[in-house]
Amino acid sequence: MNDLIAENNAAIELESPAVAAALSALGRRSALPDDVLTQAAEASRTTYNGTIGVITDGNGNALPLPSIAEVLSTLPDQDLNRALLYSKVLGLPEVRQAWQRWQRRNVPESKVSSLPVVTDGLSHGLSLCADLFGGEGRVVVVPAPYWGNYNQVFGTRTGTRMVSAPSIRAGRFRCEVIEDALADVDLADQEPVVAILHFPSNPGGYSLTANERMQLRTSLLRIADQRPLVVVCDDAYAGLVYEEAIPRASIFWDLAGIHSNLIPIKVDGVTKEFSFFGGRVGFLTFPFATESALFAALERKLGGLIRSTVGSPVAATQMIVLQALRRSGIAGEVESVRKTLEGRYRVLKEALEGVDASLLRPHPFNSGCFALVELPEELGLESGAVRRHLLENHDTGLVSLKPRYLRIAHCSVDREKLPELVSRLEKGVRELLDAK
Amino acid sequence: MNDLIAENNAAIELESPAVAAALSALGRRSALPDDVLTQAAEASRTTYNGTIGVITDGNGNALPLPSIAEVLSTLPDQDLNRALLYSKVLGLPEVRQAWQRWQRRNVPESKVSSLPVVTDGLSHGLSLCADLFGGEGRVVVVPAPYWGNYNQVFGTRTGTRMVSAPSIRAGRFRCEVIEDALADVDLADQEPVVAILHFPSNPGGYSLTANERMQLRTSLLRIADQRPLVVVCDDAYAGLVYEEAIPRASIFWDLAGIHSNLIPIKVDGVTKEFSFFGGRVGFLTFPFATESALFAALERKLGGLIRSTVGSPVAATQMIVLQALRRSGIAGEVESVRKTLEGRYRVLKEALEGVDASLLRPHPFNSGCFALVELPEELGLESGAVRRHLLENHDTGLVSLKPRYLRIAHCSVDREKLPELVSRLEKGVRELLDAK
Repeated sequence: MNDLIAENNAAIELESPAVAAALSALGRRSALPDDVLTQAAEASRTTYNGTIGVITDGNGNALPLPSIAEVLSTLPDQDLNRALLYSKVLGLPEVRQAWQRWQRRNVPESKVSSLPVVTDGLSHGLSLCADLFGGEGRVVVVPAPYWGNYNQVFGTRTGTRMVSAPSIRAGRFRCEVIEDALADVDLADQEPVVAILHFPSNPGGYSLTANERMQLRTSLLRIADQRPLVVVCDDAYAGLVYEEAIPRASIFWDLAGIHSNLIPIKVDGVTKEFSFFGGRVGFLTFPFATESALFAALERKLGGLIRSTVGSPVAATQMIVLQALRRSGIAGEVESVRKTLEGRYRVLKEALEGVDASLLRPHPFNSGCFALVELPEELGLESGAVRRHLLENHDTGLVSLKPRYLRIAHCSVDREKLPELVSRLEKGVRELLDAK
Repeated sequence: MNDLIAENNAAIELESPAVAAALSALGRRSALPDDVLTQAAEASRTTYNGTIGVITDGNGNALPLPSIAEVLSTLPDQDLNRALLYSKVLGLPEVRQAWQRWQRRNVPESKVSSLPVVTDGLSHGLSLCADLFGGEGRVVVVPAPYWGNYNQVFGTRTGTRMVSAPSIRAGRFRCEVIEDALADVDLADQEPVVAILHFPSNPGGYSLTANERMQLRTSLLRIADQRPLVVVCDDAYAGLVYEEAIPRASIFWDLAGIHSNLIPIKVDGVTKEFSFFGGRVGFLTFPFATESALFAALERKLGGLIRSTVGSPVAATQMIVLQALRRSGIAGEVESVRKTLEGRYRVLKEALEGVDASLLRPHPFNSGCFALVELPEELGLESGAVRRHLLENHDTGLVSLKPRYLRIAHCSVDREKLPELVSRLEKGVRELLDAK
């Protein structure tokens, strides 16, 4: 086992010193061992195959309880079998290939990306990135405001040092946000760092313009000139963009293959993109060729991590997702959900444009599931107090975020209710001000 | 957040100093924060509810892609919604309750056990135990031979010191196996330790007799007199017992509530018990009352760990499993799979009884999915060499385990093929011996 790990690490070192340098202690010591799984694979064509610890009919088919098979009975026979039995540790090959086609549907062939590795949803993908590239003391910069769970996934679990980098100034996104934040951090020469990009953002609902993308890319290249930079691209809300002028493709494609020290990782999945929250099918994609020794070594590390956290990814929901991916009309189905959300977005945008700017300052938003409003500092109001006031007196629920933000999730609110929601929010703030 | 963690740890310390002492560094610092989830729960009854980051129709119902909804269309409406949307972090309440009824179907009411927490399969349950109670230097004793993945889950991931404790001597299970192994380990006064019990065992296919259980229990109590002892009960193969005289219930029930320093944790799930490998629905159960402050504090820790590794458990397969759990005939469906495996077990047992004992020594087995045969040391053969010889010359696949074991997975072999498999194994060993 130790030989295998050393060999695997050497392969990474040879092909990408930047990736090797960026690995955490856990990342360095993890690798899928040559054990039962390898032996079972070697025996897969034998007639007398007693290697596999799954219950089958003796000929490789599942032996399900009738009450479980019935629920999945709309699946074709061989798909039903695959849904009931173990998935491969890195995901079912057909699902990985189909998702790769989906991811790359408008991407030039010259852009290199790996076959995606299947995860149990996007959080699991993030936690695998944290296991591989986080660890004690590793600096992780995130444009703020950001999803609080990053702190648990990277900080609490692996001991990284989280750096919150304010991303909006005077109503505009700061394209040097990561670079500026790193300037204030003590870093050793060539010390690797991690950045997390989230576009469309949570909680901001913001995606970059083409021009902002270019500036951010240039800024990240300057960092990569100094040190290995892992950029985790959290593409949870990929494709949910509502303005024509805003590019829809993931920023991952802008960053892949442009600098040996710049290592973007695409974290995406069906949760929001296919509106299948309960399915927990996510993917991790690297900017390396599937056939490369570098990706093979990373696959072995991810295999070890996946096996030791969840055993293998969920086969049943992978097969459900595969039915969707096989349909020629799938892009239309996804577009139809996007259109519904766009309708809510337009109503909310109009309502927010009408609010009293001395009470509420909406952040720029153009995509995703949320809009963020800021309480002007001079009001002296806490967002937590506003939240409770709305809950108790206005039959209205919003999420408060420190220090002075309220997040509106338009993705789960009926379009007709959004103007009234905004009007209650405005009224609530005014009441609290008057009561002071 | 830090206040909340300290408060939570204090609650554990107050109710169970043993559990508090046994927590790992990660276990101590983890807790589900009061964040978006808490705020969404508080807002769940509001008319204008903009808290939840899921895509719905605006009235709490899922907005699925037709191609995904169709696969699950046999689910009743409200169940379909629950399958498509996020599960609660600790699992869907109805599923937790139904599994608790299933677990406790022959357990006296006086035995206290918590509502099970849902995990993404049993490996995930094990990895949560490792996160809570493993960590750098913690001693983890496992009766050997054992499933190699324990080493990755506990050792590689969290840095525990794995102690492999030979469990079979002269064809019998050694009931003092954990105690004896600890006698050889340097431990500080009152230093907590972890043991992993696996019955029916993997790779042994062995379950304890009633008498052996009693002896093991007594031995573990002696350890608990000295120090906190976390006993992870890996019940992956629960119920798959083929001899009348062998108790079927989990050893967890023998260990629950018998000593303040003895902390058994039940790790079980649908993988083998419901023959649903691809579903990844597992459970973690504690010997504490669901309503206790102790369990509430542990739930908060588990919630934090689950959220930061996989977000939330798979809702879709929880709902599939729930359909099964609701059926009055479920016990019969499970029994039918057990009977099929019992049939294979009897054929295999008979075949193994006929082998030349100078070539192959079958370990005692009576349950589970496997049988283990040992190559007598005096033959000077390596199990890896036998495996390869069988693969290359006898169309037969078995798993080799160090130092001299071969594992036969009868769970996936047709009953009719088992005698021939054993005969090829015997022939293969003889050929290798003759060739020496």
